[in-house]
Amino acid sequence: MNTERLKDLRSEVDRINRELLGLLSARAMVVSEIGQLQSELQLHLYDPGREADMLAYLAAENPGPFSSETICHLFKEIFKASLDLKERQTAARCLYSRHAKPQDTKVVAGPVTFGTAPLLIAGPCSIESAEQITDTARFLSSRGVRVLRGGAYKPRTSPYGFQGLGEPALRIGRAAADAHLMAFVTEVVDTRDVAVVAESAHMLQVGARNAQNFALLREVGRTLRPVLLKRGLAQTVEEWLNAAEYILAQGNDQVVLCERGIRTFERWTRSTLDLSAAVLAKHATHLPVVVDVSHAAGRRDLLAPLARAALAAGVDGVMVEVHPNPRVALSDAEQQLDFAEFDSFLEAIRTFLPDAAPAR
Amino acid sequence: MNTERLKDLRSEVDRINRELLGLLSARAMVVSEIGQLQSELQLHLYDPGREADMLAYLAAENPGPFSSETICHLFKEIFKASLDLKERQTAARCLYSRHAKPQDTKVVAGPVTFGTAPLLIAGPCSIESAEQITDTARFLSSRGVRVLRGGAYKPRTSPYGFQGLGEPALRIGRAAADAHLMAFVTEVVDTRDVAVVAESAHMLQVGARNAQNFALLREVGRTLRPVLLKRGLAQTVEEWLNAAEYILAQGNDQVVLCERGIRTFERWTRSTLDLSAAVLAKHATHLPVVVDVSHAAGRRDLLAPLARAALAAGVDGVMVEVHPNPRVALSDAEQQLDFAEFDSFLEAIRTFLPDAAPAR
Amino acid sequence: MNTERLKDLRSEVDRINRELLGLLSARAMVVSEIGQLQSELQLHLYDPGREADMLAYLAAENPGPFSSETICHLFKEIFKASLDLKERQTAARCLYSRHAKPQDTKVVAGPVTFGTAPLLIAGPCSIESAEQITDTARFLSSRGVRVLRGGAYKPRTSPYGFQGLGEPALRIGRAAADAHLMAFVTEVVDTRDVAVVAESAHMLQVGARNAQNFALLREVGRTLRPVLLKRGLAQTVEEWLNAAEYILAQGNDQVVLCERGIRTFERWTRSTLDLSAAVLAKHATHLPVVVDVSHAAGRRDLLAPLARAALAAGVDGVMVEVHPNPRVALSDAEQQLDFAEFDSFLEAIRTFLPDAAPAR
Amino acid sequence: MNTERLKDLRSEVDRINRELLGLLSARAMVVSEIGQLQSELQLHLYDPGREADMLAYLAAENPGPFSSETICHLFKEIFKASLDLKERQTAARCLYSRHAKPQDTKVVAGPVTFGTAPLLIAGPCSIESAEQITDTARFLSSRGVRVLRGGAYKPRTSPYGFQGLGEPALRIGRAAADAHLMAFVTEVVDTRDVAVVAESAHMLQVGARNAQNFALLREVGRTLRPVLLKRGLAQTVEEWLNAAEYILAQGNDQVVLCERGIRTFERWTRSTLDLSAAVLAKHATHLPVVVDVSHAAGRRDLLAPLARAALAAGVDGVMVEVHPNPRVALSDAEQQLDFAEFDSFLEAIRTFLPDAAPAR
Repeated sequence: MNTERLKDLRSEVDRINRELLGLLSARAMVVSEIGQLQSELQLHLYDPGREADMLAYLAAENPGPFSSETICHLFKEIFKASLDLKERQTAARCLYSRHAKPQDTKVVAGPVTFGTAPLLIAGPCSIESAEQITDTARFLSSRGVRVLRGGAYKPRTSPYGFQGLGEPALRIGRAAADAHLMAFVTEVVDTRDVAVVAESAHMLQVGARNAQNFALLREVGRTLRPVLLKRGLAQTVEEWLNAAEYILAQGNDQVVLCERGIRTFERWTRSTLDLSAAVLAKHATHLPVVVDVSHAAGRRDLLAPLARAALAAGVDGVMVEVHPNPRVALSDAEQQLDFAEFDSFLEAIRTFLPDAAPAR
Repeated sequence: MNTERLKDLRSEVDRINRELLGLLSARAMVVSEIGQLQSELQLHLYDPGREADMLAYLAAENPGPFSSETICHLFKEIFKASLDLKERQTAARCLYSRHAKPQDTKVVAGPVTFGTAPLLIAGPCSIESAEQITDTARFLSSRGVRVLRGGAYKPRTSPYGFQGLGEPALRIGRAAADAHLMAFVTEVVDTRDVAVVAESAHMLQVGARNAQNFALLREVGRTLRPVLLKRGLAQTVEEWLNAAEYILAQGNDQVVLCERGIRTFERWTRSTLDLSAAVLAKHATHLPVVVDVSHAAGRRDLLAPLARAALAAGVDGVMVEVHPNPRVALSDAEQQLDFAEFDSFLEAIRTFLPDAAPAR
Repeated sequence: MNTERLKDLRSEVDRINRELLGLLSARAMVVSEIGQLQSELQLHLYDPGREADMLAYLAAENPGPFSSETICHLFKEIFKASLDLKERQTAARCLYSRHAKPQDTKVVAGPVTFGTAPLLIAGPCSIESAEQITDTARFLSSRGVRVLRGGAYKPRTSPYGFQGLGEPALRIGRAAADAHLMAFVTEVVDTRDVAVVAESAHMLQVGARNAQNFALLREVGRTLRPVLLKRGLAQTVEEWLNAAEYILAQGNDQVVLCERGIRTFERWTRSTLDLSAAVLAKHATHLPVVVDVSHAAGRRDLLAPLARAALAAGVDGVMVEVHPNPRVALSDAEQQLDFAEFDSFLEAIRTFLPDAAPAR
Repeated sequence: MNTERLKDLRSEVDRINRELLGLLSARAMVVSEIGQLQSELQLHLYDPGREADMLAYLAAENPGPFSSETICHLFKEIFKASLDLKERQTAARCLYSRHAKPQDTKVVAGPVTFGTAPLLIAGPCSIESAEQITDTARFLSSRGVRVLRGGAYKPRTSPYGFQGLGEPALRIGRAAADAHLMAFVTEVVDTRDVAVVAESAHMLQVGARNAQNFALLREVGRTLRPVLLKRGLAQTVEEWLNAAEYILAQGNDQVVLCERGIRTFERWTRSTLDLSAAVLAKHATHLPVVVDVSHAAGRRDLLAPLARAALAAGVDGVMVEVHPNPRVALSDAEQQLDFAEFDSFLEAIRTFLPDAAPAR
């Protein structure tokens, strides 16, 4: 008898569910029209005052047995879904999203295109001299690497650390890249430097420490240069994609996302490489995604296995620090590869890089 | 005209909201009766198969404009609220909750009661000899401390670290406490040891590394001894309270919660004391909450300020490690106070401890 | 016999220890003179090439039984100690340090001085209108609050969130503060805005997301305005103090450090307030330290207990968000207090604030 | 002249370095003999009291210019290196270490050997019925999978969650495995259950929540069964290896390490897979290392890319949850694959699994 009653009650629930579905859909139709009007009237789509009033009214009228907190929670979910609907319809956001643009974006940095075959980005942490960067470019080019990295402005934890050579480094970095038909990517750390860096660089890097420097993100978005956007040390994937949105919203869709490890409790690595984030970014956006194994690991012995892993997971490129003589490097001495070590590294990842030069 | 239309549409939304409220309440009534029947029929309240069927049906019938994902999300929220309602009504959970029991629980550990005035829990990390623990108990007692801690079984990161003296330490610890009318609290690390530890200890400690050792939690819940339950190093507050629920669900409501710092990226402290968690636990439960400043900080210079902070935030006690000669301690040498340092510590927190002995 | 031999060997170790001590001290004397010469010759104190050569030599000459890795590790520690010595002696760093300046620094922000009695900093997350900020200033002033906060430029996760009113907000914020003899503190997010913000603000705030925006830190260091420097979401205490050093190194010693919670796994709070960090900053520096309880907790029910805790731990002030009508706030709606709630908050922390206005 | 003097001073430093090297080596010889004597006399190698005395003496005798803190720090490093030397020489630790045993350990679990070609470990989160586990085993076996997982005792956050079927599940799990010549691996959560679980299981799993339940680690070390040891949610790699050492120290060298994600701030995944840790464990130990992608990701869309990444990085196997009907699973519903999804998964990782059955 009890089981009979249970069956009846479940039919009743089914009936109510259908009615709820009808009402929710009707509500969504009305809300959708409201969104259109708000856009025309230049009103904010989100109207917290009105939401507060609706919630107060519903809580007051609530006959139970749900608590008023539960009723408010359920309606907030409905409001949120409605706002999402309005926002999607007015295309007010998510330029980075695959929903907005299903096909992969190709990012063209000078002579190189990201988003086709996987690329290597390599070079020293900092540009220290013309000789150093020229030697590195020549060597890397001979190994099939087509993107040269090298810092002119270095964000350093201490103000007394080496801060980079600045403007001169931009010119010698670009010259070294040009001599070998490579693309030159370098970091910019100040809104006021964006124009001058954009003159020399094929691609502007925004570093992990500036990953939520929104003024800088907007400024690089206003240039015509592609941007390599590193994930912040404690940035969720959602925040990282929103940082990219700051750039895209300025009309610049040439953004490459770069996962470089997050900060955790683990102490045997400098950061913890979060490959899931790279994969999630590939799924959720149409932008190329690369992985910086040097900063993630902070130690040479992990570079090849992590690069193999990243490429197997499907990323569009790997960044690695290479220096003619890491022992005397002015920054990141422990994690840069020398030329012989880079050859071993390349050997270890070769199967994942169809375009690399033949083995030596 | 547009604004007029906006007003009309908003009235329409209001009307739909009222209907939704009515339907949600009607649904909750039916679901509530279903919960009662399920309890009588000894059925699980949660029936994922039926939920999946309802969602599939609603997604198939969805006329838009909400996507089916959105419809499913909204109904999952409704299902969740309904399950919560059923669970609350069948009292199937949340014995720790203030909703279940609004008044504060007093926890009686031998001669001492937690949950009235703030208490100090002090003593060495490990019991190393009868002399060491007796001297400590005598000293602490003379300073008004009424709860003596001391480990007999030590969970150590390395198997070659000092693992505690075991059973003999239980007896000498209890004797030292008894001689000064103190309560003796000591850790238990194995389900098979619970009975023997419960013979000697006034209060059983479950340590951070066993905070989700559910077999052990159940076993201490089956004794009549009060339990000091430390938060795990990476345990959310919600998980911590659920760990307490394991004990309470066995019929033992004598649980004191102990925040002892969580694991973060910060390296100048051993753990990061999370005082918010202690306050949240006070708000959400009826159980006493104490703070272990020694393990949180891992360094002596922070003990007094953190203890002051914890007491000002309203906790029911502070735990601190005290050793006659920390320099030669077999564990935690860097964070234990010697007797003179404890006197300074006591002086620094005196204003928050009305019951402490007068200053010397 | 064995114990006899053990005793002899220990004497031998003691003798070698003494010789090592003598040699280390002699080495330090020589290195200290080298440091002086390097300063005169404008050379970098740190010379990684020479260190690498010394290590290579020692590893090659190592007769055992220590492995060469161990020998290199020990010598690196000696090099580090030597570098520390040189750096301390040339006063090349640690302007923030109590070693450099033992007495507490007072920071004067318009009519208010940080570093004497604890201060409250209060006001809305964002300045939304003249009326809103004026009402808030009038109310807070009537309660004895002397520092008014309010954002003109808001760093928001999404580019489509409310970004602040910009320059107009600076003027109305300053006017509201002036009308009640309060100090006005507001955030600056772009190096190019520093001058204009410094015109209106008594104190420049550098937010958590710009905590390692070194270009901005240098720029605010070049103004004569005091700076409120928030700790980054994943910044170690050491990095936070180094960020302060960027400001101090420009000649501006008027820095107040602000702990505002760090990012952890816990999900019941927005961030995890790290009071240990605030205490460590007080111990390690001569700068005032305040705590922002609103951003740390992200929920109203924790504000009073956390503020009590912070003040009991000895900080120089507490920041809290107050808004005439948080329900309709354009940002941070969940964590701002309304006026009545602020009165309860004030009541709860009154014993820690000798200078507050009498209770009402 | 200054540069001349600099050169002289550097020669002087070189001379002192050589003397230091000689003294350190002489000291290490003496200490090494002390270690031997201590072992013979059954004394602890580590003698904190003597260290404290030596430090006090050296601090008192310190002529400068190093501070006494620096001198103590340097000597502590020397003491630590000496202790390491003694410990290595007495083989008192690091059974897990490649230094102790350079060649890879093969772990034999019933019909299967870990440590040769990569293996798949698959099966449901919990064993729910004979039909469920039998169907799963038949299916997996047909796809070339040779290790069957399935929980009989489930550690659940809430005491009211499904806790597993217990002993009956052990028998039906083993029967299902035997019918298809698979190895059966299942978790043990209580020291008192080890014997009964070891009767049915080919391999005992110690889960993340018990990763520092040292009593359990010792108990599984005393069986002859191989152990699958998961890394704890907030366990450093060093602590993880020490947990393995607890097992090895009991004489059981049949341990497979399993990385399953760590707890971080990221919220789009259940845990953050830390592939660096898996690689570090491979480098530092001689034990097989596998990766549990299901628990790490907590969502189906990441399983194949993360499994590809792990295999490319060189691990010895991948664990993945498979259930005939995940929608109705009693635990982990969101992350288990159904049979069709497993076929896609297998297809995606096939190139990394030379031994898998041919594609269908």
